[in-house]
Amino acid sequence: MKLTILGCYSATPRTMGNTTSQVLEIKNHMFLIDCGEGTQVQLRRHKVKFNRIKHIFISHLHGDHFYGLVGLISTFRLLTREADLHIYGPKGIKEVVTLQLKLADSWTNYKLFFHELTSEKSELVFEDDTVEVYTIPLEHRVYTNGYLFKEKTGDRKLNIDAIQEAKINIAYYQKLKQGFDVENEEGILIDNEKVTFPPKKSKSYAFCSDTVYKEDIVPLIRNVDVLYHESTFLEAHAHLAPKTKHSTAKEAASIAKKAEAGTLILGHYSSRYPDLEMFREEAKSNFENVELAQDGKLFNFN
Amino acid sequence: MKLTILGCYSATPRTMGNTTSQVLEIKNHMFLIDCGEGTQVQLRRHKVKFNRIKHIFISHLHGDHFYGLVGLISTFRLLTREADLHIYGPKGIKEVVTLQLKLADSWTNYKLFFHELTSEKSELVFEDDTVEVYTIPLEHRVYTNGYLFKEKTGDRKLNIDAIQEAKINIAYYQKLKQGFDVENEEGILIDNEKVTFPPKKSKSYAFCSDTVYKEDIVPLIRNVDVLYHESTFLEAHAHLAPKTKHSTAKEAASIAKKAEAGTLILGHYSSRYPDLEMFREEAKSNFENVELAQDGKLFNFN
Repeated sequence: MKLTILGCYSATPRTMGNTTSQVLEIKNHMFLIDCGEGTQVQLRRHKVKFNRIKHIFISHLHGDHFYGLVGLISTFRLLTREADLHIYGPKGIKEVVTLQLKLADSWTNYKLFFHELTSEKSELVFEDDTVEVYTIPLEHRVYTNGYLFKEKTGDRKLNIDAIQEAKINIAYYQKLKQGFDVENEEGILIDNEKVTFPPKKSKSYAFCSDTVYKEDIVPLIRNVDVLYHESTFLEAHAHLAPKTKHSTAKEAASIAKKAEAGTLILGHYSSRYPDLEMFREEAKSNFENVELAQDGKLFNFN
Repeated sequence: MKLTILGCYSATPRTMGNTTSQVLEIKNHMFLIDCGEGTQVQLRRHKVKFNRIKHIFISHLHGDHFYGLVGLISTFRLLTREADLHIYGPKGIKEVVTLQLKLADSWTNYKLFFHELTSEKSELVFEDDTVEVYTIPLEHRVYTNGYLFKEKTGDRKLNIDAIQEAKINIAYYQKLKQGFDVENEEGILIDNEKVTFPPKKSKSYAFCSDTVYKEDIVPLIRNVDVLYHESTFLEAHAHLAPKTKHSTAKEAASIAKKAEAGTLILGHYSSRYPDLEMFREEAKSNFENVELAQDGKLFNFN
């Protein structure tokens, strides 16, 4: 599981700070999460292959999280993309994208699927053999969802030496991987755990931006390996957080602690702060394992 | 009259090439012309004061000419702009901008005026004491206008020595500036041209992008001081120009020659060409005074 931060600043793009967008590489998927203005250029800069992106998850319809979407869709068209593209986001996203394509008389030559969200409860929005994606209802000035990405538990690993010693026929290997006890060539039932290793631990990633401090999300993200939680403000401006429906670094850390997350990544910084280290410091008073998002930074969680 | 090129490439923004946007500084106005994705960052990079922009002229609703507009409007809001903003562009521009502001629940705290264009004929769209702006109907895949910016002729300049010798009372100076003959203190009518100098020559700038080769525009832009004309293609791909409704460098030069323009600026280059000098070379076979637009380049025409 790899996460590339394309942009992690709030409000408006600047020469040295891009607005929210990330690429999560998980089980051969390349998920794009949010798409602020300039995301397509950041994708080029960090050499993300455009064609690998088949699913885009938009948290909410504030410009710093989605004004780069229609440009990316148009560029996919110009690059003669053929693969389907699925877009998940709040109701309204389909109308605003299709209106712009209509006005430009530039319909895509690939299939575009919109999955519009309206629920106030967590729901499964994507699933295949390897990954599940759930919404995380957040509380912001407009309807907003975070997203929880979960690898499914993989197969158990075969312990070949033990299997041979137990005299199990190769025809049963698939059953063993799936966790079943099987009979050996002498008709004796062999305990699966004696001849296999546990599957590789499945990873999970929760993206939570933008939101006011909201403890309701803790059960949804409990034990998540990596939590990205917005931290627009430091303590000096904590009074602005509830008013603007954003969080402080300390509040983000409090959520990470309560959820018993593995790692907390902070981001969505207000541009009023020149020194990001302060975010880490303030968060560390609540939670130890804190990382700072920075544009272009790659987190490798394997 | 000063022109800053913020972006001059066609189709999609890249790490080293921005899509169309320019700032024309003329008679204390700061006109923004087209607004591709990333324009607000280019404005910051080239230190254009956001508050000086009060009028934005959009040629057409293809993404590389206007996907940066809604982000700029939103950023103006975040910067607590108070000045009115006037936007000129094809019909539909109001709907698409206001839909995005509505979805973001982020109405501007300054007044936003849309001047939607539908005419196939040139029309005066802006006028004040110093400047006039006319549309230049172009022919592209969607409804498109170029824009002609004309300084109005200023006052005549007083020749103080000649005025004193002619014994003209100071009360008549304003009349003299306006070009009238006036009586001197002895009641003799004095020929205006004998006591004044001609006004400073007024400048004009024509922006023509995107368009197929279209001779109809020549009478509209005759004798323009500076003509920006798109040149998407070189001769090697001239066959693509009519099909995509774009022009070649040679065709742009042909328009400049027929219109007897002072200077031709080429731009809107296809990204397939690594060497821009070829555009100048090919244009020069038709017209001598050719300049190449480049991102960040400042042209000073005083």
